[in-house]
Amino acid sequence: MFEKQYDVIVVGGGHAGAEAVAAAANMGSKTLLVTMNLQTIGQMSCNPAMGGIAKGQIVREIDALGGYSGVITDKSAIQFKMLNKSKGPAMWSPRAQNDRMRFAEEWRLALERTPNVDFYQEMVSGLLVEGDKVVGVRTSLGIDIKAKAVVLTNGTFLNGLIHIGEKQFGGGRAGEKAATGITEQLSDFGFESGRMKTGTPPRVDGRSLDYSKMIVQPGDSNPEKFSYLNTQKLTEQRDCHMTHTSALVHDLLREGFDRSPMFNGRIKSIGPRYCPSIEDKINRFADKDAHQIFVEPEGWHTVEVYVNGFSTSLPEDVQYKALKSVVGFESVKFFRPGYAIEYDYFPPTQLKHTLETKVIENLYFAGQINGTTGYEEAASQGIMAGINAHLKINEKESFILKRDEAYIGVLIDDLITKGTEEPYRMFTSRAEYRTLLRQDNADLRLTPRSFDLGLAGEERLKRMEKKLTNSDKFVEFFKTTSYTPEEMNPILEEVSSATVKQSDKMFKVFSRPKVTMEHMLRLAAVSDFVNEHELDTEVLEQAEIQVKYSGYIAKEKNNADKLLRLENIKIPDDFDYRKLKSLSYEAREKLEAIRPVTISQASRISGVSPSDISVLLVFLGR
Amino acid sequence: MFEKQYDVIVVGGGHAGAEAVAAAANMGSKTLLVTMNLQTIGQMSCNPAMGGIAKGQIVREIDALGGYSGVITDKSAIQFKMLNKSKGPAMWSPRAQNDRMRFAEEWRLALERTPNVDFYQEMVSGLLVEGDKVVGVRTSLGIDIKAKAVVLTNGTFLNGLIHIGEKQFGGGRAGEKAATGITEQLSDFGFESGRMKTGTPPRVDGRSLDYSKMIVQPGDSNPEKFSYLNTQKLTEQRDCHMTHTSALVHDLLREGFDRSPMFNGRIKSIGPRYCPSIEDKINRFADKDAHQIFVEPEGWHTVEVYVNGFSTSLPEDVQYKALKSVVGFESVKFFRPGYAIEYDYFPPTQLKHTLETKVIENLYFAGQINGTTGYEEAASQGIMAGINAHLKINEKESFILKRDEAYIGVLIDDLITKGTEEPYRMFTSRAEYRTLLRQDNADLRLTPRSFDLGLAGEERLKRMEKKLTNSDKFVEFFKTTSYTPEEMNPILEEVSSATVKQSDKMFKVFSRPKVTMEHMLRLAAVSDFVNEHELDTEVLEQAEIQVKYSGYIAKEKNNADKLLRLENIKIPDDFDYRKLKSLSYEAREKLEAIRPVTISQASRISGVSPSDISVLLVFLGR
Repeated sequence: MFEKQYDVIVVGGGHAGAEAVAAAANMGSKTLLVTMNLQTIGQMSCNPAMGGIAKGQIVREIDALGGYSGVITDKSAIQFKMLNKSKGPAMWSPRAQNDRMRFAEEWRLALERTPNVDFYQEMVSGLLVEGDKVVGVRTSLGIDIKAKAVVLTNGTFLNGLIHIGEKQFGGGRAGEKAATGITEQLSDFGFESGRMKTGTPPRVDGRSLDYSKMIVQPGDSNPEKFSYLNTQKLTEQRDCHMTHTSALVHDLLREGFDRSPMFNGRIKSIGPRYCPSIEDKINRFADKDAHQIFVEPEGWHTVEVYVNGFSTSLPEDVQYKALKSVVGFESVKFFRPGYAIEYDYFPPTQLKHTLETKVIENLYFAGQINGTTGYEEAASQGIMAGINAHLKINEKESFILKRDEAYIGVLIDDLITKGTEEPYRMFTSRAEYRTLLRQDNADLRLTPRSFDLGLAGEERLKRMEKKLTNSDKFVEFFKTTSYTPEEMNPILEEVSSATVKQSDKMFKVFSRPKVTMEHMLRLAAVSDFVNEHELDTEVLEQAEIQVKYSGYIAKEKNNADKLLRLENIKIPDDFDYRKLKSLSYEAREKLEAIRPVTISQASRISGVSPSDISVLLVFLGR
Repeated sequence: MFEKQYDVIVVGGGHAGAEAVAAAANMGSKTLLVTMNLQTIGQMSCNPAMGGIAKGQIVREIDALGGYSGVITDKSAIQFKMLNKSKGPAMWSPRAQNDRMRFAEEWRLALERTPNVDFYQEMVSGLLVEGDKVVGVRTSLGIDIKAKAVVLTNGTFLNGLIHIGEKQFGGGRAGEKAATGITEQLSDFGFESGRMKTGTPPRVDGRSLDYSKMIVQPGDSNPEKFSYLNTQKLTEQRDCHMTHTSALVHDLLREGFDRSPMFNGRIKSIGPRYCPSIEDKINRFADKDAHQIFVEPEGWHTVEVYVNGFSTSLPEDVQYKALKSVVGFESVKFFRPGYAIEYDYFPPTQLKHTLETKVIENLYFAGQINGTTGYEEAASQGIMAGINAHLKINEKESFILKRDEAYIGVLIDDLITKGTEEPYRMFTSRAEYRTLLRQDNADLRLTPRSFDLGLAGEERLKRMEKKLTNSDKFVEFFKTTSYTPEEMNPILEEVSSATVKQSDKMFKVFSRPKVTMEHMLRLAAVSDFVNEHELDTEVLEQAEIQVKYSGYIAKEKNNADKLLRLENIKIPDDFDYRKLKSLSYEAREKLEAIRPVTISQASRISGVSPSDISVLLVFLGR
């Protein structure tokens, strides 16, 4: 049935698989997507949202590279928020709620419109390997499909086992089959594999909720978007709502703990620390008697609602009783209960920086199979695997992003150098150069490089170049143009900043914390410049960041250098991490358990962030 | 989790289940839809089309009753055709191609908007029965949900087993799980069950086809629609294409026959006679060296294509090799192979006319579980089961449609009196009163009755009444208004019909075969009447049929009466059916096998149509 050899076969059509397909195909590889169900391409398995802190930056980076996640998020968004807008621009993180059905449909159609992409629906049950090189896949029907490279993106499907209370059944998602065969074969090849766990909350009927008792969570009044391309901003949005658990809810949940697969030993694998089940939260944070619940609509028109914050694998009767006691959920009707799922992953230390496996040549892993959690983390690995698979089979130099170039670089470096024993999620704190890795400059950082690779298109490059030229020009203008005290002082008085006695370059006064672009635009010379050069809001924002944060950026680079020099400092054997409250909870736990000998070793432990290392250095007197 | 008792629980969310839910809920029953996957409600499992000969009439009847299939077909249609327009109006059959994704999405949202409908995603593994009464269902998680009535619409999921060549796997559809437990439990209650088989063709990549070698099959230039409500007619349509198999294709297929589950004994159950697999067609009609293939798009935007006419469970390599030899398919790329599926059904002689089972009270069956095939057949049983479940638990008289009232009546009467040993499909030939059961008058036949039941809404009734009043008025006008030879003769000459010498009532001349409404409208009195009363095209059509076919209708009623009187005629023991070439192929085969003693017995054999009985009567000299 498959006569010709493909360049790249991608197994799995989730976020990782879909981006891998798009990247390889757009670079010119004849690519085949093999998935168990062609109707679930781009399916959001868990929450109907993209982005968020650090994750939003990743989506912007994927978009800057020419991936599809940003465009599809924009097309299917029902709400948009720029998180952390009150903090510095390194923390700004875009996040969208999405229409679940629309998101999947847009992915499917986007891949269909992509040249070089073929589709095939079936379960892949094994790899074709010759020597130490992968040469294709074998399906459950026994069909051999040849390819020069294979990308595995199996998500939660490899020997997926769903748990609800004391019940268990095989499945890759609720109502879907598990995939078998691949883990067993890879183990035979010498791969180490493990089990991870994740979970999802109940889905409920929005008509059964009393929103009047909850706090409305509207989208931004001036919603931005994800893609640097010309996608549309939302003109209408759907609200989310917030409520919370209570001591009563926790008590009701605790009543089911003896039947919980998490606590009775049935689930041994580790779940995502920062996306814990509600029972896990109660257990770990016994002193807290309320946790937030975000009530998220599943789409523009559907009444189905996602109960964010209430992930659980407790027995369904316990889920129901407890959720009914949450404010606003008194009459809740379930569409389906929450559940936990265990699945196989392969510790990512078995990978190269390109996401190619060390054991089998031309075989790439991306997404949850590498022990990560999150759509964005998966998608970013997918695009990198797709790019590198294409480059490898064309005997071109590999494409590796460094830690100071992209969150994607941080993610992959963390994975392959530190490994992970629990589902790995990205945070801004994992990036030591986060002031450089902003959501506003992902295009400036990555689009030219992707264009050189042959992935990002001409339009994308041109839009980026125009933005860069204009913002550089504008920054230069501030550096070279002077204000007069007469025009500047009214503004400075207004923001309670010290007035000036004589003219000086605008750059200097604009660097003051309280002076914003909005103020500067009141100066005739500035507004004339903006009008004359037809600068758009993106350019204004970029120039403002470049002016106001130039100091921070320089400082951070300096810190990073210091960190490098100080890397080999010893930690006393009897060091008591529990005393260091400014360490993150995760870091304390991990450091206690592993007890690293040097700061360098400490820094390589998954979950110990650069901030934690700084804390340690301070305490050790460096 | 389910505290309150539901009025009606419907198990399964396909065509039957979705209509059952809508009917029961709209009549006021608190209704719960339980399905294994809430994302596949209203999924078209096989071809992306609704209607067709006799089936289109059924959809119109469902719509006239207040069901949703017509509205959803209209909203998701990508092409519309009125089949058999060159024949008499009893044969006119609407048919639409649909966007598969949109169809399912519209169903889901329509049910969400229906008051009294709740949703729950899980597998139902058994029924709760007290004495001989059903009182609810039990799910695979062990949740008991109470209800006064239960409608089972399990489709192909009960112990579903998928076959491709020599491979088999459990599943209710490709990529989906089978359902277990129900058959076993019902058998314990004394139900007889059997196995049936159906199949589906490969789905392929439309970009790999050469349409220039095929015959374009466009939609109607003036597309009609299904619903009597105010849905929109299509303004744009997608083309289908036609091609055909060849002797070479048949030879290639035959090469796989020894590996075919159909021929090597692996599949013993019987498939749909009028929707046979391509291997079955080759086998049964060995003298034909070409069969038509209709290439149907799967939606507005997708490149996926449905290969109608090429259903097969041959090994995938055989499917591929043979399909590649079909004209236009030389470079075909498969999205997925065709397959056969075996599933449990319950011979429908175990049901009452209401679709309630005889063994367990308040338990209803609808759709493929009753041995039928086809979306429309399933949907029509669903609405009737939903209606009757509601009526029963409210101690109201049941709603049964007679054979002269609706195709739905013919369908259910056939099922429960004749049973069926092979998947039952509707045909116009099954309806002895088909001149009465037209697609144009389903509203006149059924909407008032449904309105009285509390199902069809006020708007629907008003539209029907306006149409009826106007067409009656118009027919009366033709009966009472005279033409003059001067105005009539030019028209009669034009259509080569005998001219008239004197004035007479318009009704008479309009009854002539060649004189159409278009001609009559040239008469000033007629066009004045139309303008004055603002008659729309539907009314013109209805009046024309009432005038032109009044004779046929009277004649058919007369024939039907005769048939009743002659019902008990003996058939000689040695009667040679093979001589009667005007019997249908199916009827000859069945009569030969069963050798009925009387015409009456013959008429009750599934597959022996009223036309066949007429042929027998003529031959026996009556």
